[in-house]
Amino acid sequence: MFSLSEKVEFSESKFDVVAVGEVLADIISTDLVPSFKEADEFKRYFGGSPANITMNVSSLGANSALISKVGADGIGDYLTEKLVAGGVDVSGVVSSAEHNTSIVMVTQSKESPDFIAYRDAEKYIEEDDIKEELITDTKVIHLSTFALSAPVTRETLAKIVELAAKNDKIISLDPNYRPQLWEGREDGPQFIKDLLQQVNIVKPSLDDAEALFGSGSTPREYINQFHKLGVELVILTLGADGVIVSTAKQEIELDTYAEQVVDTTGAGDAFWSGLYASLVDGDKLETAVKVGNATAALALQQVGALADLPNKDEIINRFKI
Amino acid sequence: MFSLSEKVEFSESKFDVVAVGEVLADIISTDLVPSFKEADEFKRYFGGSPANITMNVSSLGANSALISKVGADGIGDYLTEKLVAGGVDVSGVVSSAEHNTSIVMVTQSKESPDFIAYRDAEKYIEEDDIKEELITDTKVIHLSTFALSAPVTRETLAKIVELAAKNDKIISLDPNYRPQLWEGREDGPQFIKDLLQQVNIVKPSLDDAEALFGSGSTPREYINQFHKLGVELVILTLGADGVIVSTAKQEIELDTYAEQVVDTTGAGDAFWSGLYASLVDGDKLETAVKVGNATAALALQQVGALADLPNKDEIINRFKI
Repeated sequence: MFSLSEKVEFSESKFDVVAVGEVLADIISTDLVPSFKEADEFKRYFGGSPANITMNVSSLGANSALISKVGADGIGDYLTEKLVAGGVDVSGVVSSAEHNTSIVMVTQSKESPDFIAYRDAEKYIEEDDIKEELITDTKVIHLSTFALSAPVTRETLAKIVELAAKNDKIISLDPNYRPQLWEGREDGPQFIKDLLQQVNIVKPSLDDAEALFGSGSTPREYINQFHKLGVELVILTLGADGVIVSTAKQEIELDTYAEQVVDTTGAGDAFWSGLYASLVDGDKLETAVKVGNATAALALQQVGALADLPNKDEIINRFKI
Repeated sequence: MFSLSEKVEFSESKFDVVAVGEVLADIISTDLVPSFKEADEFKRYFGGSPANITMNVSSLGANSALISKVGADGIGDYLTEKLVAGGVDVSGVVSSAEHNTSIVMVTQSKESPDFIAYRDAEKYIEEDDIKEELITDTKVIHLSTFALSAPVTRETLAKIVELAAKNDKIISLDPNYRPQLWEGREDGPQFIKDLLQQVNIVKPSLDDAEALFGSGSTPREYINQFHKLGVELVILTLGADGVIVSTAKQEIELDTYAEQVVDTTGAGDAFWSGLYASLVDGDKLETAVKVGNATAALALQQVGALADLPNKDEIINRFKI
C-alpha cells in the first residue's frame, strides 16, 4: 500500500520507466485557424503521450524505454532518431514494413483544437513484438488509453499488464477514455475498469472520470470509484484548481505551481514524468507528486508537447519541495 | 472504331466527363529535402488524379463530375469546396462519418519524391454510393488505377465499368499499376487486363506498360498488347520524347509542345483533360490528342498538380492545332 510519507520500494531494475503505446508525428497548423478548411500550412512535431513521457523522464535524469511500433518510413525514422537523441531505449520500438507511421493532423485553435488521427503502425503492437525484459526488468510500466482504443494493441497491452502484475511492477494508466477513438465491439469503459483492477496509479481529469463512471458525481466520489476498483493512488487533476492526490487512507490537495499558462499541451505528460523520476529515485510519495506538479507547471509555461526540463533535483530545489 | 480523322460520336448527355476515384489532400514538404527525416514544414494542396482531371476539364470549358468519398471532416470540406469553386458537380462525392479524408504526405525532392499514403474514405466507395445518372448520363467515364488498388472501391469500379459499357460510354483508364499500393489477394495486373477488355482509351507510360506486361518489349509491342485486350485508343507517353497515339489501324507520333519543364506533376492529368475537353466538343480525334498534348505542355511549365488553364479553343489557337 502507498503512503504519502514513505517511498515506494522497487527491486533493482535495468529500466526505471517503460511506457507502452503511441509514438507519432503531430502535424500542427502553423496558424491559428477556425477549422481544417482554413489550415494550409503545417509543422511536424514529435508526439504521442507515452513517447513524450519517456523523453521527459530521460531529461529529468531517470532512464526510460518505449514499447511501440512505427512504419518503415521516413517519419518513423525521424521519431526513432528523436527518441535515441533524447536518451530513450528504443529496443522495444518495432519498425514494420506493413504499416505507415501514425500521424495526427491538428489545427491550432483558440477554441478546442480539431484533430484527425491517421493511425496505423502503433495500432498493431503485437504480443510477438514485446521483449519480455522491458516488462520484467523495469520499475514502472505506463500505459495510455489511446493505445488501448485499438483492438490489436489493446490485446497486447492486457497481456503486458498481466505479466507486469505477476512481477509486482508499478502499473500506471492514463484513463482518458474517448468513445470516438475506441475501435471494435468491446465496451470501452468496462474494459478499462477491468484493467484498472491491476493498475496501481491513475491520473484522471474530471472529464476522464465522467467518461468512465458517468456524470454527476463529486470529485471525491470519482476518486472512490477508482479506489473501489483497486487503484492505490488516484491523482485527480482539476485544471487551474490543482490536483487532489488520494491513497484511499490519505489525501492532499496541491495548487498549481504555474504562475502563467502559455500552453496546456504536454502538461499531463510532464506530471507523470516528474512523478516517476522522483519515485524511482527513492523520494517519498508526497515529494514525488509535488515534483510531478512542478514539472507540469514548467510545461504549462512553455509551448509544445515536449517541455525543456531540468534535472529532477533541480526541480526540487527550484520549487522548494 | 476510332479514327484519327473523325470525331467521336456521343449521344446527348448531362455530363461531359465523370471521373471516378481518389480526391485527397497532398501534404507536401515546403523545402527540398533528401527524405521525410528532414521534412519539418508542409503545405496542403488539392489532389487526387481523377479529381484534378475534373477540375481541369471544367477550366477548359467542358462540364465534369466526380464520384468519390471524403471523410466528414475539415479536409473533406476543403476539398469539396475547391471542387464546387472549380465548377465540378459534386453530387457523387459522398461524405462519410466513418472515415477520414485521405491524405498523402509527400517530400519535395530533386530525386524521386518520397510519399506516404494515409488512405481512408476514397478506399470505401461502395455500390450504394453511386448515383446511376452519373454513369448513364455522361459522355466519358474516367477511372484511376490508384482507386482500383483498394478492394472495396475496386469492386465498385468494376460494376461502374459494366454499367458504362452496357450504355456504350467511352471508358478510360490510367493504367499505372504499382504493386506496393495494391491491396488484397487478387492478382493486380490480371484484374486490370480483364477490365481493359471494356476500356476504350488508355494512356500508359513505358513504366506502366512494363508493370502490366513485364519488361523487355518495344513501345510498339506494348501498344499492341493493349490493342489485343480490346483497347481502341492507346496513348503511350515517352516523357521528353513525346507520345505515340495508336488506334491499331493508324498511328501518329507527337513531340512535346513544352519549351521548358518546370514541374512534371499534373502533366498526365492535364493531357487527359485536354483530350476530353476537345473530344466532347466534337473535334476530330487527331485534334483532341493534340489538345491533350498542348494542355500537358502548359502543365509542365507550371508548378503544382493543378495548372492554370485557358479555354480549350484558346489552346487550339495558341498552339496552332
